[in-house]
Amino acid sequence: MQKDKSIAVTTKNETALLNIINHQTLIATKAMRIAGEAGGLVAEFGLRRAQGPDAGIYGSRAAIIGGAESTSNVLAGQMFGIKVTGTIAHSFVMSFETELEAFKKYASVYPNDCLLIVDTYDTLKSGVPNAITVFKELKAKGHKPLGIRLDSGDLAYLSKTARVMLDEADMQDVKIFASGDIDEKVLTALKIQGAKIDAYGIGTKLITAEPHPALGGVYKLSGMYNGGELVPKMKISDAPVKITNPGFKTIYRIYKSDGMAAADLIALRGENLNFTKPLTIFHPLETWKRKTFENYCVKDLPVQIFKKGELVYNLPTLSEIAAYAKKSREEFWEEYTRLINPHVYKVDLSQELYDLKAELLNRG
Amino acid sequence: MQKDKSIAVTTKNETALLNIINHQTLIATKAMRIAGEAGGLVAEFGLRRAQGPDAGIYGSRAAIIGGAESTSNVLAGQMFGIKVTGTIAHSFVMSFETELEAFKKYASVYPNDCLLIVDTYDTLKSGVPNAITVFKELKAKGHKPLGIRLDSGDLAYLSKTARVMLDEADMQDVKIFASGDIDEKVLTALKIQGAKIDAYGIGTKLITAEPHPALGGVYKLSGMYNGGELVPKMKISDAPVKITNPGFKTIYRIYKSDGMAAADLIALRGENLNFTKPLTIFHPLETWKRKTFENYCVKDLPVQIFKKGELVYNLPTLSEIAAYAKKSREEFWEEYTRLINPHVYKVDLSQELYDLKAELLNRG
Repeated sequence: MQKDKSIAVTTKNETALLNIINHQTLIATKAMRIAGEAGGLVAEFGLRRAQGPDAGIYGSRAAIIGGAESTSNVLAGQMFGIKVTGTIAHSFVMSFETELEAFKKYASVYPNDCLLIVDTYDTLKSGVPNAITVFKELKAKGHKPLGIRLDSGDLAYLSKTARVMLDEADMQDVKIFASGDIDEKVLTALKIQGAKIDAYGIGTKLITAEPHPALGGVYKLSGMYNGGELVPKMKISDAPVKITNPGFKTIYRIYKSDGMAAADLIALRGENLNFTKPLTIFHPLETWKRKTFENYCVKDLPVQIFKKGELVYNLPTLSEIAAYAKKSREEFWEEYTRLINPHVYKVDLSQELYDLKAELLNRG
Repeated sequence: MQKDKSIAVTTKNETALLNIINHQTLIATKAMRIAGEAGGLVAEFGLRRAQGPDAGIYGSRAAIIGGAESTSNVLAGQMFGIKVTGTIAHSFVMSFETELEAFKKYASVYPNDCLLIVDTYDTLKSGVPNAITVFKELKAKGHKPLGIRLDSGDLAYLSKTARVMLDEADMQDVKIFASGDIDEKVLTALKIQGAKIDAYGIGTKLITAEPHPALGGVYKLSGMYNGGELVPKMKISDAPVKITNPGFKTIYRIYKSDGMAAADLIALRGENLNFTKPLTIFHPLETWKRKTFENYCVKDLPVQIFKKGELVYNLPTLSEIAAYAKKSREEFWEEYTRLINPHVYKVDLSQELYDLKAELLNRG
């Protein structure tokens, strides 16, 4: 059968782009929600629950962009230069006659990174006292123990009690790590309960973005060249939010004089917009909702990556990307970023784009 | 620093095994839930929403095990010999002046596999009539058109109306495919509403197992050899379900005389159990709940894969695995497999295993 190349050319990029962008944006977003609630450092601990090896590796990288500080994924650490952290597995502790023996063995191998998991048998009766015994021995030899990890049970209660036990043993510098089915909602609750946790290992719910494991990004055609002229295209749907915006567009972010983001404006490229005068924007569906900015400035958000097939962009490092994400988030008032009942951030259309869309819609 | 190999040896398999088993078991289970509700064939359509490329590829294989019939993932099709299906993308339809032009182009390239997506502009006013026009042309040339795909809107209403339109055009053999955020709950609803759908393309919610995107499989030590003798090991926890079962074990599935599964019994290997006499089992926590089987037979479920490091197992093909999964599910009464309020299937412990567990628990 004679195949036509145009069918393949139109659609061959779709799945790869969506797979990469949907997955990694999703995990970076989840990491940002989690890092925003954690009162301490976040380590990404999810590989064993990730949806396959890639999900662990690229999910780990995305978690760093969203605000995680380190990963337990050694390969991701090597591939992307991410700091690697982790502690003993329960199965390691169980492979010794006693927990104390396991802790001593571990401390002898990692005397300067000694982080002990204390919940294999009984956190407060066995784990924490055994850890204190081993930490005392390490200190006597001139080493600085890192901390303990709570991995189950009532993290608020256990962390507060363990903190007292450590402090009474003169171990104020020993940190408390916590892990075990933590997400942003648990972090909020731990904060309210006054948990004494210095850092978190967050696995399953970060690496899978539970309970919303998919980002619904789609790939539609917004325009195509016909004899050198760009013809705008649009997908129509019964659901207004599913109607695409036609044409070759850009996005302006509008900042008020305090430097905080106030709205985004999607406009056609080359559209004549005067940002030196007051700017009125309107809701794209409820068009009577209007807002005028007097003192403001705008940033044209998209960046050109390729020009006539050539890379014209200096690829940033992972830590530069993470810093950019952090800075961008800080430009939003917490009214927009809070987890419960956030304000809806305005994303409006320019008049010309609105008119083009209406024209194509009415043409049918 | 001198590292000790024992730390690495104990834990090096943990993450890889859990990553593979947790992910693929999860997706196969979700596929089985979905295939069980679908009144027609299921095609796995999830790659663009999968959590990275691996999640798409191995998720596709797992979906076949759970009961999907084909995939839109061409690479998975090639790697595992899975049947590949798919239809036009919206972006392809949009790249033509008119929908009819796009359909004609597609039909000219795939005259014998012509499946047209009909919701790019207006399903009933434009998509279905244009598809009928193109199908008539194909039929006139001696080809057999495959069908139409509904990808948005009210699938029950649209499928019933489209069925009437197709039938009136004498196209009783043209199938109706549906896709668009479908999961097992939507399938139940479509069944109740009498939707006329012959096959489903199921993407996001199958490939990510939304809303439960992780299976909580863990890796714990159940025993270790000490001078040739197997010493049972157990992880203790405040939560009874998190206390592991110690020792080297097997699982017997108990079948009643109707050939249906009645319970599973976890027992120690080498334990003296007489399956020629009546068998009484009891709930491992609520031990007063007892059940005695008179006419029954048992199957020892685990299969040896490796023996002294050598593969002693004939690896089944993917279709053999899928057939085994289907047969195994059919051994369960639908009271256990239904989606709403299923009976809890009994998984009990043998007396010897129960006693060993109690002894280790009390030893502390």
